[in-house]
Amino acid sequence: MRFIDACLGRPVDTTPVWVMRQAGRYLPEYRELRAQSDFLTMCRTPELAAEATLQPMRRFDLDAAIIFSDILIPVEAMGMAVEFRPAPYFPAPITGKEDIARLVIPHPKRDLGFVLEALRQVRAALDPKKALIGFVGAPFTLAAYMVEGGGSKDFMQLKGMMHRDPAAFSDLLAKLADTIAPYLAAQIDAGANAVQLFDTWAGQLAPEDFAKFALPAARSVIERVRREGVPVIYFVNGAAPYLDVLRSSKADVLGIDFRVDLSQAIERLGRDVVVQGNLDPAVLLGPAAQIEARAAAIVEKGKAAKGHIFNLGHGINKDTDPQAMSVLVDAVHKAGAR
Amino acid sequence: MRFIDACLGRPVDTTPVWVMRQAGRYLPEYRELRAQSDFLTMCRTPELAAEATLQPMRRFDLDAAIIFSDILIPVEAMGMAVEFRPAPYFPAPITGKEDIARLVIPHPKRDLGFVLEALRQVRAALDPKKALIGFVGAPFTLAAYMVEGGGSKDFMQLKGMMHRDPAAFSDLLAKLADTIAPYLAAQIDAGANAVQLFDTWAGQLAPEDFAKFALPAARSVIERVRREGVPVIYFVNGAAPYLDVLRSSKADVLGIDFRVDLSQAIERLGRDVVVQGNLDPAVLLGPAAQIEARAAAIVEKGKAAKGHIFNLGHGINKDTDPQAMSVLVDAVHKAGAR
Repeated sequence: MRFIDACLGRPVDTTPVWVMRQAGRYLPEYRELRAQSDFLTMCRTPELAAEATLQPMRRFDLDAAIIFSDILIPVEAMGMAVEFRPAPYFPAPITGKEDIARLVIPHPKRDLGFVLEALRQVRAALDPKKALIGFVGAPFTLAAYMVEGGGSKDFMQLKGMMHRDPAAFSDLLAKLADTIAPYLAAQIDAGANAVQLFDTWAGQLAPEDFAKFALPAARSVIERVRREGVPVIYFVNGAAPYLDVLRSSKADVLGIDFRVDLSQAIERLGRDVVVQGNLDPAVLLGPAAQIEARAAAIVEKGKAAKGHIFNLGHGINKDTDPQAMSVLVDAVHKAGAR
Repeated sequence: MRFIDACLGRPVDTTPVWVMRQAGRYLPEYRELRAQSDFLTMCRTPELAAEATLQPMRRFDLDAAIIFSDILIPVEAMGMAVEFRPAPYFPAPITGKEDIARLVIPHPKRDLGFVLEALRQVRAALDPKKALIGFVGAPFTLAAYMVEGGGSKDFMQLKGMMHRDPAAFSDLLAKLADTIAPYLAAQIDAGANAVQLFDTWAGQLAPEDFAKFALPAARSVIERVRREGVPVIYFVNGAAPYLDVLRSSKADVLGIDFRVDLSQAIERLGRDVVVQGNLDPAVLLGPAAQIEARAAAIVEKGKAAKGHIFNLGHGINKDTDPQAMSVLVDAVHKAGAR
C-alpha cells in the first residue's frame, strides 16, 4: 500500500493523501445518512459507521480510509456520560482523585466491539491497495475534555488540576493510556493498517508541561501499540512549539498542523522523519488554481523528509465544495509523482 | 522608567513586570466597580476606566499600568455595532467589498476622546517611575472579529474572504491600519509611554498567510507609530510558527505567548531583540513555590536577550488569587536583580 510504504519511509510512486474528517458533513451523501441517526448512533452502529467511512473512498482517489468514529468513544466506556450537542459535553466532569479512582479500564472487545466490527466491515469492502486507519484521542486531550466537561478557551480547570495536584493528573493520564493502548491494539486486530493518536489540545500547554504531561502519556501508548507491527501516527494540533521534542514520542509518523511551515518542521524534526500534513483547510474554500499551487508547494517541501503523507493540517471544513477535494487529491498525486 | 529602559534595551536594576489584563475580574475591587456599570460604559467613562487602570497599581509593585479599555474600541467608531455578551459580538459582520467601503476612518480626538481622557487622568495620578501603556487590536485581529461577527474556532468566514477575495481583505486591513495608527499616536499624545498592538488571532494563520496579510498590516501601523518616539510592543498570540519573520514587524518589543519556550524564542529571533513574556497564567492557580520557581526560570532565560519585560503569556485568569500576583511580582523583581 502506497500509504503504508510512505509511513515506513519506503519509496512510493507518488505522495499518498487522505484528509482528516474526510467522512463528514461536506459530503451530501454523509448529510443524508446523518439525517437519519444522531452522531453517537452512527458511531455505535457498525453498518452506518462503515458506510460513512467508505463514502469519500467512492468519490475520491484517496490512499487511506479513516474509520468513522470519535476521539472520545472510549471515554464513555470508562464510565463517564458523554453527549454531543454537537460539541462534546460531559455532564459530570472529573473534579479530583475520587472521580479518577472510579474510572474503569474498558475491555475493547466487550465494551467497544461496535468500532471493531465497523473496522472489519470496512476492511472487507475496501480496495486492498487502500489503507484503513484506526484512531482515538491521545491521553492529554481526552483528559482535557473530561476535566473541562467539554472544549474550552483556556483550559483553566484542567491546568488548575495539573498544577495543584500533578499526581492525580498523572494518574488520570496513566488510566487513559491503559485504556487507549489496548483499544488501538484491538483496532489493529480488527483490520486497521495504521492508527492515529489525536492530541487536539496538547498545543495549549507551555512546552515544559507538554514535555512533562502530554508527551510521556502519548509515548506510553505509542510504545505499546508499535509492538502490534503497524505504523502509529501522532498528530499534535499546534505542534510548532514542541518540534524539538516531538520525535521522542517514538511515533512512526508525525502529523503536523497547518500553522507550521512544513520545511521548517522537517528541518527542526530532522530529515529522517516521516511527516504528515499540512494544508490549511481554508485553502479549499478558495479557487482551484490556488488549491493546486499550495498543495504542490507542500508536496515539494515534503520531499525533503524520509517520507511524507499529504493531509490537511486540520479537519476539512463542512462548507467545502466536494469538487475542491477532487482538485486537491489530483493535485497531490500529480505533484508527488516520482 | 525601568519599563521603558527595558523596552529600549538599556540596562535596568531588575526585570520590569506587568501582566496582561491586570485590571480585571480577579481583583475584588474591580468586580465591585464593574457591578455598577457594564463593560462598555466602563471603557467609555474616563473616571471609571482610570480607576480600573489604577487598582492593580495600588496593590502590586508593577512597573507599568495598561489603560483599561478593549482591543475593539475603535471598531465601533468605524461604524460597526459592537456588543459584549460578554464575548464581543457584531450583529452585522462584514461580508464583502460594499461593507468595507462603508467603514469610516474615525478621528481619534472627536470619536475616541474618552480613551484619551482616561489616559490623561491615569498619567496625572500615576507614580512618575511607572509607565503607562496604551493599546489596541492589530489590523488582522480586528478584521477577524469584524468578518466572523465575534470569536471563532476556525475562522472560516474570515479565511474564506481572504482566499476568495484577497484584494477586498487587504483593503479592510489597510482601512484598519489607517484607523489604528493615528489612534495609537493620539494615545501617546495623551500620555501613553508605550503602546501594545494585540494580534490575538494571527496565530490561526498558515505561516504563508501570516507573512502575506497579518504581518505587513501590523508593520504598517508600527512604522507609523514608532515616529511618535515611544516603544511599540507587538504581541502575537501563538507566535511559535512565525518566530523567524516576527522581527520584520519593526516593533521595539516582541510579546511572546506562553506556548513558546522563551530561550528558544530568543534563539530564533536573535539575541539583539527585546522580548516580553511569557509565563502560562495557569501557573498562578498553583502553589506559591511553583510560581516563584517558574517565574525565576523565565527571568533567567530573558537575560539572554537585549532586554526582557516579564509578563504572562496570556491574560490573567479571573479565578486567580490576588495573592498569587504579589508572589509573582516579588519573584520577578528578586530573580531579575542585577
